[in-house]
Amino acid sequence: MEVIQVLHMKGGLGKTSYATNSWVQKKVISMTKPITEEAITKLYCSSFPTSLAIADLGCSSGPNTLFLVSELIKTVENIRQKLGLGSPEYHVLLNDLPGNDFNTIFRCLLPDFQTKLKKQIGPGLGPCLFSAFPGSFYGRLFPKNSLHFVHSSYSLQWLSQVPEGLKNNKRNIYMASTSPPNVLKAYYEQFQRDFLCFLKCRSEEVVSGGRMVLTFLGRRSEDPSSKEGCYIWELLAMALDQMVSEGLIEEEKLESFNIPQYTPSPTEVKSEVLQEGSFSIDRMDVTEVNWNVYHNELNLQGDAIYQDGGYNVAQCMRAVAEPLLVSHFGEGIIEEVFCRYREIITDRMSREKTEFVNVIVALTKKS
Amino acid sequence: MEVIQVLHMKGGLGKTSYATNSWVQKKVISMTKPITEEAITKLYCSSFPTSLAIADLGCSSGPNTLFLVSELIKTVENIRQKLGLGSPEYHVLLNDLPGNDFNTIFRCLLPDFQTKLKKQIGPGLGPCLFSAFPGSFYGRLFPKNSLHFVHSSYSLQWLSQVPEGLKNNKRNIYMASTSPPNVLKAYYEQFQRDFLCFLKCRSEEVVSGGRMVLTFLGRRSEDPSSKEGCYIWELLAMALDQMVSEGLIEEEKLESFNIPQYTPSPTEVKSEVLQEGSFSIDRMDVTEVNWNVYHNELNLQGDAIYQDGGYNVAQCMRAVAEPLLVSHFGEGIIEEVFCRYREIITDRMSREKTEFVNVIVALTKKS
Repeated sequence: MEVIQVLHMKGGLGKTSYATNSWVQKKVISMTKPITEEAITKLYCSSFPTSLAIADLGCSSGPNTLFLVSELIKTVENIRQKLGLGSPEYHVLLNDLPGNDFNTIFRCLLPDFQTKLKKQIGPGLGPCLFSAFPGSFYGRLFPKNSLHFVHSSYSLQWLSQVPEGLKNNKRNIYMASTSPPNVLKAYYEQFQRDFLCFLKCRSEEVVSGGRMVLTFLGRRSEDPSSKEGCYIWELLAMALDQMVSEGLIEEEKLESFNIPQYTPSPTEVKSEVLQEGSFSIDRMDVTEVNWNVYHNELNLQGDAIYQDGGYNVAQCMRAVAEPLLVSHFGEGIIEEVFCRYREIITDRMSREKTEFVNVIVALTKKS
Repeated sequence: MEVIQVLHMKGGLGKTSYATNSWVQKKVISMTKPITEEAITKLYCSSFPTSLAIADLGCSSGPNTLFLVSELIKTVENIRQKLGLGSPEYHVLLNDLPGNDFNTIFRCLLPDFQTKLKKQIGPGLGPCLFSAFPGSFYGRLFPKNSLHFVHSSYSLQWLSQVPEGLKNNKRNIYMASTSPPNVLKAYYEQFQRDFLCFLKCRSEEVVSGGRMVLTFLGRRSEDPSSKEGCYIWELLAMALDQMVSEGLIEEEKLESFNIPQYTPSPTEVKSEVLQEGSFSIDRMDVTEVNWNVYHNELNLQGDAIYQDGGYNVAQCMRAVAEPLLVSHFGEGIIEEVFCRYREIITDRMSREKTEFVNVIVALTKKS
């Protein structure tokens, strides 16, 4: 069954989003700020347009939903004020799967956002028009030639479906060092198809000279089964494997379960952009973010750092993995799985360096 | 307090919409079909555009939400198939207040709609892109020059707020034959301000040659306190008045309650269109729809017609009036009010001809 269908059917509030892991998200958006700022500045200064359409793909419904949009608008307002220009008309297009809680965005997040923005910018701010476009970004979403700027963070690593032909992936639930070559191939080919489709759809929707900044959960290594991309899922597989050994989950059930994700390398991202051909690459960056949100913070000491960190990471992963697990294994095992997962994560975080790798690409639509 | 605020704060699912009274709505949309068909046909045949942006203002979240859009798309598909043209790209922009249940539209109504439409039209159908634009239509909602066709049914009679200066409207809750002249003037001036603002905003958003079909709950007579527009509220005032007499509602509470609606005459609608100046009037129609949904149907006889009809009308009116009543009088009186209202309506329907009057105007944006 298509992942998107599972996510639609099973997700509760906020859980259906491509990008729900809120603290990692916020940290990544902040880290990526210089890149998005550079892109929106170049876009705005290339022609000083009187209207700007900004799309956020995988916007979710939570504290980060309008965070980036707010930064982008402030950047443009800053420039146009310095240049003595009038404020453009902003059109913000929010996208996520139809199961996302758009009501909460409209009723709770937007009014606060608009009040704050008006206060920060002052009376000169142009009209800010908001809209929601529900659906999978592996298909057409927006009108032709309607977008000036597209942003997506921590969403594009989700595939449109679990790749076919993973039968011999056994007790792995994602790519792993013990996965047979056909499994790695099937995952990569699914990524290629999906990302190519994404680029084709966006090339119809983005205007000439329009820009995109896309952040993937990815990896540095060219080896798709390297630890950087796969470790977090390997630890979930360990929790599930323990439960199989104890007879709490059937072996066949575990063997037929695989995560519809692909954490690409910069080379793999680049390769599809070149293949599709409509966008030029302005820059490509790789950054890391520690699993532990409290990493580098001084107010927590010793074991407490790792215990809270383990809880946070497990909660983040639960937000994205629970609908998939429930759909495959049923509700019954969920609490036990995440209890064990948290313990395993906490243990590993105390003993080794644990990081998510981010691959960020900034693109311009060719004319 | 602004009506829009009250509706946001107090409305539950579907109750917040400008247009929730579903059976009257459906009947009116069906009755108006020749007018909307004519308008979309003229629009499409004037330039055979390759993309068509259709906005529905006050779309609600229920069985009628996509009914008109579906009719419009089928009309265009019919023409382009006959002419051997390719299908345009459709962009459907749904608007209602932020309290409207957009989640239900995205999760339940859209998938069904898309499946049915694809089946009816066949494989040649172009992309159908859907979006939601939350907010009051008495302000800017859509990007500049982005709309080809605008539809609104049974929403524009709602004012943006209760007019000021209604203190001496006493036990009336709307305009009535016993309302003092300043009350009628205040209502009319609020309508003028609101509708002019609506036209100004849409004139920025609709492309040259773009069309609008707007249906108001209205009246034929030039007398704003004539029975056609006011009777349904007069009967609610009677129920409230009974309860004041029995000490169930404070007199001052009733005297400070007024409904933020204005049911305009064709002349009044025309006057604002001419005043604003961006749109030419293609046609103007007035129709009636009986309060009784079972009117002209043969399966119900005698008193049963009026009892069920009374229930239906009271339920319809409850959907729109409840948030306003709760906000002013509190939850406590609601059941009793609507029980009495239903009885009064049933009684009147059995004794007199009871009709809603619809004022329909078809407009074209001047170039």
